Amino acid sequence: MSTLKLAVIEGDGIGHEVVPEGLRVLAAALEGSDVTVETTPFDLGAGRWHRTGETLTDEDLERLAEHDAILLGAVGDPDVPSGVLERGMLLRLRFAFDQYVNLRPTRLFTGVSTPLQDPGQVDFLVVREGTEGPYVGNGGTLREGTKDEVATEVSLNTALGVERVVRYAFDQAAARRGHLTLVHKHNVLVHAGHLWRRIVEQVGAEYPQVSVDYAHVDAATIYLVTDPSRFDVIVTDNLFGDILTDLAGAIGGGIGLAASGNINPTGAFPSMFEPVHGSAPDIAGQGLADPTATVLSVALLLDHIGRADAAERVRRAVEQDLASRAGRPARSTAQIGTDLAEAVRGA
Amino acid sequence: MSTLKLAVIEGDGIGHEVVPEGLRVLAAALEGSDVTVETTPFDLGAGRWHRTGETLTDEDLERLAEHDAILLGAVGDPDVPSGVLERGMLLRLRFAFDQYVNLRPTRLFTGVSTPLQDPGQVDFLVVREGTEGPYVGNGGTLREGTKDEVATEVSLNTALGVERVVRYAFDQAAARRGHLTLVHKHNVLVHAGHLWRRIVEQVGAEYPQVSVDYAHVDAATIYLVTDPSRFDVIVTDNLFGDILTDLAGAIGGGIGLAASGNINPTGAFPSMFEPVHGSAPDIAGQGLADPTATVLSVALLLDHIGRADAAERVRRAVEQDLASRAGRPARSTAQIGTDLAEAVRGA
Ligand SMILES: CC(C)[C@H](C(=O)O)[C@@H](O)C(=O)O
Ligand SMILES: CC(C)[C@H](C(=O)O)[C@@H](O)C(=O)O
Repeated sequence: MSTLKLAVIEGDGIGHEVVPEGLRVLAAALEGSDVTVETTPFDLGAGRWHRTGETLTDEDLERLAEHDAILLGAVGDPDVPSGVLERGMLLRLRFAFDQYVNLRPTRLFTGVSTPLQDPGQVDFLVVREGTEGPYVGNGGTLREGTKDEVATEVSLNTALGVERVVRYAFDQAAARRGHLTLVHKHNVLVHAGHLWRRIVEQVGAEYPQVSVDYAHVDAATIYLVTDPSRFDVIVTDNLFGDILTDLAGAIGGGIGLAASGNINPTGAFPSMFEPVHGSAPDIAGQGLADPTATVLSVALLLDHIGRADAAERVRRAVEQDLASRAGRPARSTAQIGTDLAEAVRGA
Repeated sequence: MSTLKLAVIEGDGIGHEVVPEGLRVLAAALEGSDVTVETTPFDLGAGRWHRTGETLTDEDLERLAEHDAILLGAVGDPDVPSGVLERGMLLRLRFAFDQYVNLRPTRLFTGVSTPLQDPGQVDFLVVREGTEGPYVGNGGTLREGTKDEVATEVSLNTALGVERVVRYAFDQAAARRGHLTLVHKHNVLVHAGHLWRRIVEQVGAEYPQVSVDYAHVDAATIYLVTDPSRFDVIVTDNLFGDILTDLAGAIGGGIGLAASGNINPTGAFPSMFEPVHGSAPDIAGQGLADPTATVLSVALLLDHIGRADAAERVRRAVEQDLASRAGRPARSTAQIGTDLAEAVRGA
């Protein structure tokens, strides 16, 4: 028997509702396996901040680091100033645990509606860099609040940082349909752009079975709505990945279905799995939230711990559940979770 | 009589085909008015670069500066390295002539197909900052080509630069449906983000008739495909504006219809009007290009020189032309231009 030490951050709002369903499905998927899940709840997010003024302490980090993985619901509420939890907690976790792969699959499941008229095949994976680029927090303000204010934001990119995520993306592409698209803006951001291009070229030489493509980020948004089937794996920087994956989520049937993993492939620190959606205070506490994005994030967690079979069973359960929704009355958060767990057990 | 001294840069590829049609419609729109158009051709773009190695010389700039406005087709071909013309010519023009308003309207005309299933009303204006942000060319590379390479890109933002474009956007919103959305990413890019927020708040106080909204750039891409009618005027930074306007173009029926103005509202330097599309070498020289984006850019030029009536006639002609296309055989570039000029004259 092995034990999966899972840190659980429900967070705020619907985080409290979707995470238990994710755990329910996780338990079902591991039933009869040699893995037992041991969860530790962590009180982090807007609630904690309102009470204590703390976002993420060094002690929190140390305790989290003792776990194999983290499952996060969603954090935030309208009364927390912008940036406090994002930078103080979410980004701090990604950086402190060196979660350099931000993995965001998009797949348009049967039965799911999309804003696109004629989506074609939508099944791609965005590998977003998670620890560099414009997200490093390297900016400054001069003469704040005056008419002479100057504000900067510095995007930092290193060969080390780019190479490891590019390599991960090539591995993914090799295991999928063998196609990788670099998205950047190298005609304007020439320094960062050149670094990304060079590394994709270099690493690509080791993957002759993967065909390589390039799109400027602006053009990539066009392709996402006119021809998403051209994408298999997209590798891109932190900010471009942020933008593209929200758009991808919308195309794939809404951010309510979008899963993500913040992964440190070395295992030196825990990886973190979270739905892309927010805490949705407007619907919180009513059992209205769809736990599917959390459940799909659990599938990524299962992949990460080497349980690809269990992950596939979860995805198949989600696929069937989504396909069966049309014409049926809406179910509560817990009911969807229960149904999914059932399906995973049956599969 | 007054004279409009117009510098004309056909550029490359389909630029040679669409620009003459833009000029044809411009002439038609000003027929019977007190404005005569005096055009000066400028040989700039990939062709010139291949022959001479020059992108835009100081002398070109000086000569261009003697004009009231610039009409540009498209530049580039696959044999010019990425960034050479973009930075050496297009961006150099925007910066040298302080074209701080990059104006990009999106309107889904009747009869035009869109990738969206249910677009609703699509009629908004993106006011993109044109002279600051990550486009300033302030980056560097250390240990280039080695495994220790570090590359930076610095986004520079000033109160002066943000305030003037925000003010312009509020003016536009006040003259339209009275709604302005700031798009940024202030929860991560806190320094630049705070500057934008503060200025929008300050300037907004002078425009009580304009309601103000905010969206993170990632969320904005979702809204563009799920609920574009929420937008009237979007004001945003240079890079976010680049991304959003390509997506907006796709939603509004394709980049082949997307017009833009690079405007210096002070008149100290010429403003430049150009279709958003590229030089499309694959279809160049065959009369296949649609000149509509160029014609709509001419409408922006007419607005800019205070001929709102003529601009409206051009837009109405385009509207009717697009509405009448269904079921008719495709026309050549020149035929579409001729038909539009005819319609403008008749209106
Ligand atoms: C909340 C925010 C910091 C975060 C990001 O920008 O990465 C979010 O948008 C995401 O995509 O996970
Ligand atoms: C060609 C390129 C420099 C340019 C930009 O990024 O601004 C283009 O994408 C545009 O939108 O006009």
